[in-house]
Amino acid sequence: MYRHTRELQFTAKPEKPDALFAAKFQEILGGQFGEMTVMMQYLFQGWNCRVPGKYKDMIMDIGAEEISHVEMLTVMLARLLEGAPGEATDKAAAANPALAAVLGGQNVQHAIVSGGGARPTDSLGNPWNAGYIAASGNLLTDFRSNVAAEAQSRLMTSRIANMTDDRGVKEMLAFNLARDTYHQQQWLLGIQMLAEDGFTETQIERSNGDWENHDAAHVFYTSTNGSAAGEGLWATGNSLVDGEPFRTEELRPLTDDDGTLPAPDPLQFVTYDGNAGPGKPGTGAGAHGQGAQNVVTKVKDALTGDDS
Amino acid sequence: MYRHTRELQFTAKPEKPDALFAAKFQEILGGQFGEMTVMMQYLFQGWNCRVPGKYKDMIMDIGAEEISHVEMLTVMLARLLEGAPGEATDKAAAANPALAAVLGGQNVQHAIVSGGGARPTDSLGNPWNAGYIAASGNLLTDFRSNVAAEAQSRLMTSRIANMTDDRGVKEMLAFNLARDTYHQQQWLLGIQMLAEDGFTETQIERSNGDWENHDAAHVFYTSTNGSAAGEGLWATGNSLVDGEPFRTEELRPLTDDDGTLPAPDPLQFVTYDGNAGPGKPGTGAGAHGQGAQNVVTKVKDALTGDDS
Amino acid sequence: MYRHTRELQFTAKPEKPDALFAAKFQEILGGQFGEMTVMMQYLFQGWNCRVPGKYKDMIMDIGAEEISHVEMLTVMLARLLEGAPGEATDKAAAANPALAAVLGGQNVQHAIVSGGGARPTDSLGNPWNAGYIAASGNLLTDFRSNVAAEAQSRLMTSRIANMTDDRGVKEMLAFNLARDTYHQQQWLLGIQMLAEDGFTETQIERSNGDWENHDAAHVFYTSTNGSAAGEGLWATGNSLVDGEPFRTEELRPLTDDDGTLPAPDPLQFVTYDGNAGPGKPGTGAGAHGQGAQNVVTKVKDALTGDDS
Amino acid sequence: MYRHTRELQFTAKPEKPDALFAAKFQEILGGQFGEMTVMMQYLFQGWNCRVPGKYKDMIMDIGAEEISHVEMLTVMLARLLEGAPGEATDKAAAANPALAAVLGGQNVQHAIVSGGGARPTDSLGNPWNAGYIAASGNLLTDFRSNVAAEAQSRLMTSRIANMTDDRGVKEMLAFNLARDTYHQQQWLLGIQMLAEDGFTETQIERSNGDWENHDAAHVFYTSTNGSAAGEGLWATGNSLVDGEPFRTEELRPLTDDDGTLPAPDPLQFVTYDGNAGPGKPGTGAGAHGQGAQNVVTKVKDALTGDDS
Amino acid sequence: MYRHTRELQFTAKPEKPDALFAAKFQEILGGQFGEMTVMMQYLFQGWNCRVPGKYKDMIMDIGAEEISHVEMLTVMLARLLEGAPGEATDKAAAANPALAAVLGGQNVQHAIVSGGGARPTDSLGNPWNAGYIAASGNLLTDFRSNVAAEAQSRLMTSRIANMTDDRGVKEMLAFNLARDTYHQQQWLLGIQMLAEDGFTETQIERSNGDWENHDAAHVFYTSTNGSAAGEGLWATGNSLVDGEPFRTEELRPLTDDDGTLPAPDPLQFVTYDGNAGPGKPGTGAGAHGQGAQNVVTKVKDALTGDDS
Amino acid sequence: MYRHTRELQFTAKPEKPDALFAAKFQEILGGQFGEMTVMMQYLFQGWNCRVPGKYKDMIMDIGAEEISHVEMLTVMLARLLEGAPGEATDKAAAANPALAAVLGGQNVQHAIVSGGGARPTDSLGNPWNAGYIAASGNLLTDFRSNVAAEAQSRLMTSRIANMTDDRGVKEMLAFNLARDTYHQQQWLLGIQMLAEDGFTETQIERSNGDWENHDAAHVFYTSTNGSAAGEGLWATGNSLVDGEPFRTEELRPLTDDDGTLPAPDPLQFVTYDGNAGPGKPGTGAGAHGQGAQNVVTKVKDALTGDDS
Repeated sequence: MYRHTRELQFTAKPEKPDALFAAKFQEILGGQFGEMTVMMQYLFQGWNCRVPGKYKDMIMDIGAEEISHVEMLTVMLARLLEGAPGEATDKAAAANPALAAVLGGQNVQHAIVSGGGARPTDSLGNPWNAGYIAASGNLLTDFRSNVAAEAQSRLMTSRIANMTDDRGVKEMLAFNLARDTYHQQQWLLGIQMLAEDGFTETQIERSNGDWENHDAAHVFYTSTNGSAAGEGLWATGNSLVDGEPFRTEELRPLTDDDGTLPAPDPLQFVTYDGNAGPGKPGTGAGAHGQGAQNVVTKVKDALTGDDS
Repeated sequence: MYRHTRELQFTAKPEKPDALFAAKFQEILGGQFGEMTVMMQYLFQGWNCRVPGKYKDMIMDIGAEEISHVEMLTVMLARLLEGAPGEATDKAAAANPALAAVLGGQNVQHAIVSGGGARPTDSLGNPWNAGYIAASGNLLTDFRSNVAAEAQSRLMTSRIANMTDDRGVKEMLAFNLARDTYHQQQWLLGIQMLAEDGFTETQIERSNGDWENHDAAHVFYTSTNGSAAGEGLWATGNSLVDGEPFRTEELRPLTDDDGTLPAPDPLQFVTYDGNAGPGKPGTGAGAHGQGAQNVVTKVKDALTGDDS
Repeated sequence: MYRHTRELQFTAKPEKPDALFAAKFQEILGGQFGEMTVMMQYLFQGWNCRVPGKYKDMIMDIGAEEISHVEMLTVMLARLLEGAPGEATDKAAAANPALAAVLGGQNVQHAIVSGGGARPTDSLGNPWNAGYIAASGNLLTDFRSNVAAEAQSRLMTSRIANMTDDRGVKEMLAFNLARDTYHQQQWLLGIQMLAEDGFTETQIERSNGDWENHDAAHVFYTSTNGSAAGEGLWATGNSLVDGEPFRTEELRPLTDDDGTLPAPDPLQFVTYDGNAGPGKPGTGAGAHGQGAQNVVTKVKDALTGDDS
Repeated sequence: MYRHTRELQFTAKPEKPDALFAAKFQEILGGQFGEMTVMMQYLFQGWNCRVPGKYKDMIMDIGAEEISHVEMLTVMLARLLEGAPGEATDKAAAANPALAAVLGGQNVQHAIVSGGGARPTDSLGNPWNAGYIAASGNLLTDFRSNVAAEAQSRLMTSRIANMTDDRGVKEMLAFNLARDTYHQQQWLLGIQMLAEDGFTETQIERSNGDWENHDAAHVFYTSTNGSAAGEGLWATGNSLVDGEPFRTEELRPLTDDDGTLPAPDPLQFVTYDGNAGPGKPGTGAGAHGQGAQNVVTKVKDALTGDDS
Repeated sequence: MYRHTRELQFTAKPEKPDALFAAKFQEILGGQFGEMTVMMQYLFQGWNCRVPGKYKDMIMDIGAEEISHVEMLTVMLARLLEGAPGEATDKAAAANPALAAVLGGQNVQHAIVSGGGARPTDSLGNPWNAGYIAASGNLLTDFRSNVAAEAQSRLMTSRIANMTDDRGVKEMLAFNLARDTYHQQQWLLGIQMLAEDGFTETQIERSNGDWENHDAAHVFYTSTNGSAAGEGLWATGNSLVDGEPFRTEELRPLTDDDGTLPAPDPLQFVTYDGNAGPGKPGTGAGAHGQGAQNVVTKVKDALTGDDS
Repeated sequence: MYRHTRELQFTAKPEKPDALFAAKFQEILGGQFGEMTVMMQYLFQGWNCRVPGKYKDMIMDIGAEEISHVEMLTVMLARLLEGAPGEATDKAAAANPALAAVLGGQNVQHAIVSGGGARPTDSLGNPWNAGYIAASGNLLTDFRSNVAAEAQSRLMTSRIANMTDDRGVKEMLAFNLARDTYHQQQWLLGIQMLAEDGFTETQIERSNGDWENHDAAHVFYTSTNGSAAGEGLWATGNSLVDGEPFRTEELRPLTDDDGTLPAPDPLQFVTYDGNAGPGKPGTGAGAHGQGAQNVVTKVKDALTGDDS
């Protein structure tokens, strides 16, 4: 369960309003790598976590902190938008002409839709959507996503911080940058602990690793003429999984399969030249019928108790 | 520039068609963590890369390979959909009754929209969109995203692999799993090289690190009652950046700022009780006018050569 | 700021797992009218609220409760998905044949993407997006949206409740239904208080009401042959704003303006027959140049101090 | 069926073109609360309405009017965009320098994509999508959504109206504002009639109200320190449903359920520590198999005529 | 302006309800190539059309017809959904076991969200969005899009028609198929008339054709090994624009430009190795400053009347 | 399989950076009709093509060329963004004041998200999505979509070309325009060959044409008062399918079906007045139960071998 406390986690007071900066600031609130993303990502990872104890508790703890960060950013935004202009353009330009020059950079939805409040969107107005987050139930892969999310988020925050010299904004962003620095390490150390606790051997996702193609796990394929990529550790080093050396190969077909496709169902009116058989209307060109028949047979057998 | 070769990179032949499995298989083609995502992610990272040499070449090389992977998956899908049913439901059910039981699990857009071909969507029909990819111009953060993408992609591939026992499908997936194993390492070793080459000191994104809040970079905040999160290395260990110890603190406000907001522009008809000043229509409540005035003054000064 | 408490707000224990019901259940978590929507709607409304006191506090309070509701739903979902099938379809069908019949109705992303956890999507897999929420800064209009959101949300919850007879699920839904009943009233009473407090006179949004078209505010327009709509209070009653009677009129043009459009800029290659003048390349067909010129003149005058 | 009449419902003639205002104007055409939303919302509600007579006819009548409103807005937009600039930026700036200052605020898709025509998007270019509309088949909940849609739409229209002093634009908006005033009342009176006609008792959505949690329907939960929310009618008043008094309680867990999750299917590779049992591959951890078995047994019994 | 008539354009009565077919049927209502798409496409093209007379009138006429088609489809859908199941799954399965087998194929939003009404989505639940439509202001290119839209729409309709043998459904679809046949011709003949009327010379979009790369307009580039593409008229025929012969060439770089990128702004923290110059913080690496300076100089000159 | 070559297909060097033009340029990269769209459209059409030989090879060849075009555009964009500003706004304005005037028109995600690289979005920041592409398996309808895509793409390219006079940009666009000219013809000639090869008789999509409504395939319906649409060939000409003359008719209902809907399932709480029968809870209003019963009976009969 969640409780609200009136005070913010950290002060969110700009020295003065700045509607132009507010437009850019939206990116770290509601963008692909904004705070809404890490908030929702950690909440879903925590709620779905099936390992009680330090991992689940840690994710739940940071989830609550991230809600608090989103709150801080929205308050900062609303304060940056103090008195953002809703006047008739012409009147405004007459009384305060340089306004015309800056109006172009304002986020018009701040004026029209939210009435001077934060918007749940990125800096170009794309509504935040859940296609930004990862929550797979597998802590190793999710922690990898979390490191990436914090690193990208921190980079965007740094870029935006360089676009203002408002001391109030920068003081808050100095806090946010620090949290992103810390959180990157939190997830990296989390991966280290997953290994120590036996949830992963190599810190590499390797489910079904016993039957993966062993050879293909040790090759760097290149096709660019004059590529220098072979100089990298990924080509000259050894596997982090089994210690065997990597090698470089020219990217080339490992098969003579040229992707020729079989007959479609004639009732789908797919363009087809008959090369894979008759495909008469109504016959289903045989193949899927067979696939379905397999299931049919099994269902029937099971229902009648016939195990043959 | 890119050239096409008729043969696939690897064989993509299922033993037999299976429209139900094809519906699930879409997830690793056009899903958030599917092959379209890594293909587009690496292409954009490579095209935007401003460091010539081994990094750019490596990203370009893998970009070409990933287009080839997407091709393999689409061919596999079209073959799984051979003869997928387009018949009248009732007639089909009469001639082949168990069809009724399995029709529910089919992706109806395979029958209606693509005519038995691969769709650029995930397993539930969401069209692939570019909000899935990361390409920031910063190789450290992008390589972090790439590790995550390969790990999540490999996990989904493993889950789907367990949903079939078609040997043709599994042979191709054994190749894909191996590439994902390799590529995770490629990006991790890439990060190691970025450090060796001096592009990052700590493998942690730390731009503007000189003025971030030093204290906030060393604390784990907890609010869950009885949280065991303090047992983790993120609380008991030392910073990967400066070696200073981490510590755990109760999540609490570090400010008495309660997020109270200032006066809006009256012309936006925002509900407002006058607590922050008069806010008369046309006056813009003062604040933004000041913000705009700052820019105005500077523009005017610059144009008139007044540097005061 | 927000804090997490380990216990849920209300018990979320199904009697037994049910992957099919879980697929439907997603609608009230991540759908257009699901709990994620009211959670994010209230959070943004609260953070953006410029009236300190009972309204802002009330919105903040309910925001925290709604996060707790989303948490309850995700836990219920993960429990409904206990052991949801990730086996090879054919093997599963052989050992447990009726599985084949029900697999069709399962949400395949529960198996492939979230590994048996809740998804931030609706029942058909559409990712939740912020285009579902309203937060305008105007409490009257937002409270109207809130009544609607609670009503629609409650309706969906009722429909889903009728799709199970699991007593654990129903016990939790009985709590959610009650909260939706209560919250509808909360917003309606909030509107009543806004009127008592003088933030709205008529409970009807009427900004700029002094110059709206008075006549058009009292007519019901009809065009359907034999329409019975004239029998409603909206046609036979009196205005809630000024008490004047409503009337019914045939929907008909109130103008002879037939929507004929003027000349485009020739450089846009719009199909155009010259009917509105020459439209020569470079001249901009006159009009926009004039519009721009108006602004230009004003900016220039302002910068040079010329107020003529 | 629908017929087109050449004349508009109301005059849509701006005094002069204004590409900057046109960019903002898109919000009330194709935004979340724009006219496209109410048009599509009423059309779907009307077509899906299962009560013949005054309600269905009224919805159908307003649906036709809203198509006419969308038409008016598109014509206004195209006229505001008369001659909007498609020239080479540098040439334009040379001949007409202030153009440079205003180009920033123009919607570039007006120039590039629609060639000076209206776009089916909001003011920031988000394409209109059907996730904005509500049509549930339940008139009470839909009318609640309709009041909200008209109120929000009217608020946006007012805000935009204050951004211009073009008399032609304002004359049309005065008509639109009036219709929004009228339509808010239409839906409120519609709800009143639904009650009079016995389709709802309390004007509160209460399906399955007989078994909802009675206690939870009368409490306001608070968690914010020092919250003033308890002063509102929602805490001090009586239920609109049964007249019983509301009360305020501290938001606290009503359960000791801490959301611990059960065993996943091992084949999903979810991180799991075995706390809920063995979870051997292939056994499905028992639970879902039981759920599926329930259905299996019932299907089998039904097919064999065994009702035991 | 638009008026509604109570009767449909064509009968929309299925012989009997069929919730499974209704799920598929959504594709031709709210899918990428469904009737909502052509309806909105023609409405926007008509409203934006700047050529009064037969073209604009024709587009407006078909726009009204398409609204009527969307209405027909929604009515058909609601009738197909008559009594679609909202019961508790288990109870339903007990009383009517085969229901369990078919529930999987039902669109659960028909039951949960629309209450047995049509949904503004495709067959997999993607909400219709305006990114499906084209309205460019250029009639030649739009008519090309219209032919395509009608052809794709007709193909989907045919595929769906083959999935039922309900005579009522088929009778309506026979009407829709015919309209799609007719409308394809309408747009093709429209293109022919655009040529006769002098709006296009070659029926090929060729704006700025006077300076396009003449050579590149006559080559087919091939890179696939053993490609048979050179046998087509696009390689062996003559240009439809100037009658000159086409030819086939190997796809190869026409430049030695290898895409190397210049220095970024240092404040963006892009990974950069200094190969293109110093790129010191604050200097903007020179280049953009120059670009901006060009505009600055021009604005300043214009404002001061200096035309040098 | 695909291989990368270091050199671009064509030079992509602007004379100088121009961040404002770069913002607009995004439209032809990642917009609805940008190069990403044709690239992905041709790739999916090619991979899904079931006719080996010249058609499939041609589509595969152009697919590879389009990847190369996307690459050219991204390189051009990154070069246009050389040194695009990431400085503190105020400092920048002080040192270089006109920057303030142009900042409004910059794409802020170029600065914040991609660090001066191309974005996979349109000019207003909408992420590219697969809902833009067509790949139906039917070559006739896809070639129609391809002509449209090339025509629209070429028009946008022309419009954008007119917004710059940078000779480097124009030289590349002259190449792109020429390719779009050529490709329009390629698809038109492809349709001609499909007819010659017998894959289509009339170049009109006419699947199930034998039972379409013959009369409705020859009428133009009009409803606009005074419509001149009857003057077009679509009204005065003859069918391209069977040579029979077209005619014009008033748009009017061809039925007395007024769209009245039947009883809903009572458990869906749809507003319903009982006019179509009792609709008691639990009875499902009869209808769907019957529909389901049909399938049940057939499944049961098939499984028991009863064909009666």
